[in-house]
Amino acid sequence: MSGRVIVVGLGAGDPAQITPQVTQAINLATDIIGYIPYIDKITPKQGVTLHPSDNRVEIERAEHALTLAQAGGIVLIVSSGDPGVFAMAAALFEALEKNLQKWQDIDIEILPGITAMLAAAALVGAPLGHDFCVINLSDNLKPWSIIEKRLLGAVEADFAMAFYNPRSKSRPEGFEKTLKLLQFKCEPDRLIMFARAVTTKEETVQIVPICKANAEMADMRTLVIVGSSQTRIIKQNKREWIYTPRSYPDTDIQ
Amino acid sequence: MSGRVIVVGLGAGDPAQITPQVTQAINLATDIIGYIPYIDKITPKQGVTLHPSDNRVEIERAEHALTLAQAGGIVLIVSSGDPGVFAMAAALFEALEKNLQKWQDIDIEILPGITAMLAAAALVGAPLGHDFCVINLSDNLKPWSIIEKRLLGAVEADFAMAFYNPRSKSRPEGFEKTLKLLQFKCEPDRLIMFARAVTTKEETVQIVPICKANAEMADMRTLVIVGSSQTRIIKQNKREWIYTPRSYPDTDIQ
Repeated sequence: MSGRVIVVGLGAGDPAQITPQVTQAINLATDIIGYIPYIDKITPKQGVTLHPSDNRVEIERAEHALTLAQAGGIVLIVSSGDPGVFAMAAALFEALEKNLQKWQDIDIEILPGITAMLAAAALVGAPLGHDFCVINLSDNLKPWSIIEKRLLGAVEADFAMAFYNPRSKSRPEGFEKTLKLLQFKCEPDRLIMFARAVTTKEETVQIVPICKANAEMADMRTLVIVGSSQTRIIKQNKREWIYTPRSYPDTDIQ
Repeated sequence: MSGRVIVVGLGAGDPAQITPQVTQAINLATDIIGYIPYIDKITPKQGVTLHPSDNRVEIERAEHALTLAQAGGIVLIVSSGDPGVFAMAAALFEALEKNLQKWQDIDIEILPGITAMLAAAALVGAPLGHDFCVINLSDNLKPWSIIEKRLLGAVEADFAMAFYNPRSKSRPEGFEKTLKLLQFKCEPDRLIMFARAVTTKEETVQIVPICKANAEMADMRTLVIVGSSQTRIIKQNKREWIYTPRSYPDTDIQ
């Protein structure tokens, strides 16, 4: 009787970035569960039950999906971007592990999607063309001390950096601290990019040297990329492109 | 007269992971350029000129594309995975910058794709569900010292790690050094995953504690993910899943 849970990523915004594999899963589902704005993006086939849910109730959402699958449903959990990057896949496994025996027979599948940093990077060039790190700046589920440690480690190792969830109304100060730390540690012309609502009608992109960046440039819909020491800016065809070369100079970076 | 260069990502292997946006670009192209195995994956419309090229001639390939676009072509450069992650997008901007005036009027567009680490992570669960870093282990274009610095920084900051190009016939020793460093620095049951040729018929996946890993488990088609200290393994429905929880304990990781 046990059914399936399929966790899918809808990409950054543009429906033309949803993979055919995900579209096929949407057409297969008996139930679709997800945060309301993501559910709103979907045109499901007739007879599907939609279960829109609020933000920040990921475990409850995952348990709801597992319960429906237990009863035989083909249950789709929708995430924006890629479900494995700061999204619903980890929450599903957390819920699963809490009651592992109970959900033992459910078929689970995770289908990847275009995560925001890839969509944002493509818009401006190739800032992630060399080694990089990816940090969720929200400290809802982790202490600020580990974020700070990772930022310092990233500067020291000269990674480019992609930041998810840089700033929200409930935690306005974290990104300000991040920016101050980077402004203190990096050279003033280090490049930083703010890409908001990428591939949607509200899309905006700003590229500035880090000395001119301020916290108000980011909100919850912004993906931030900080270049490494090697990231470059060029002007071509009335556009500004930023990219990180594939090679790295053969000197100790200290 | 100037045309366009569009750099696209074909995803990890399964054609069902190619976005409709990329498929549309394939249908638009007058010329398609890329490394032979990627070109072979494409079914172009009639009249398109294919320009298969060898491995490791990225700059020449980019210049070829820009030259064809200069003459009015709509030129597609195909990459596997995402073009912005250790692939053709950075090479294109390097070529562009070398002759910026010459290529000033060409329209350039980068279209994202499902990069190997996202496809590999989805296969095994959610190992990249928390902060992580992404390192190209090839030292063809960078000194080993910077790779080592980044590995040490990643362990220190407790990032999960995704490794591209871990090992090739021409550089068999780099991954061995990487593994030794991680075996020395991480606890013995730290999880490591070897995902080879993901989403193709030759796909294989191995998950082991790092103390049992050896360099022969990886080759050029393998994507390696090393968990953070928090990454967990669970058994469910005759499968092994690995995932990194969204939360991080509120203690100094020292």
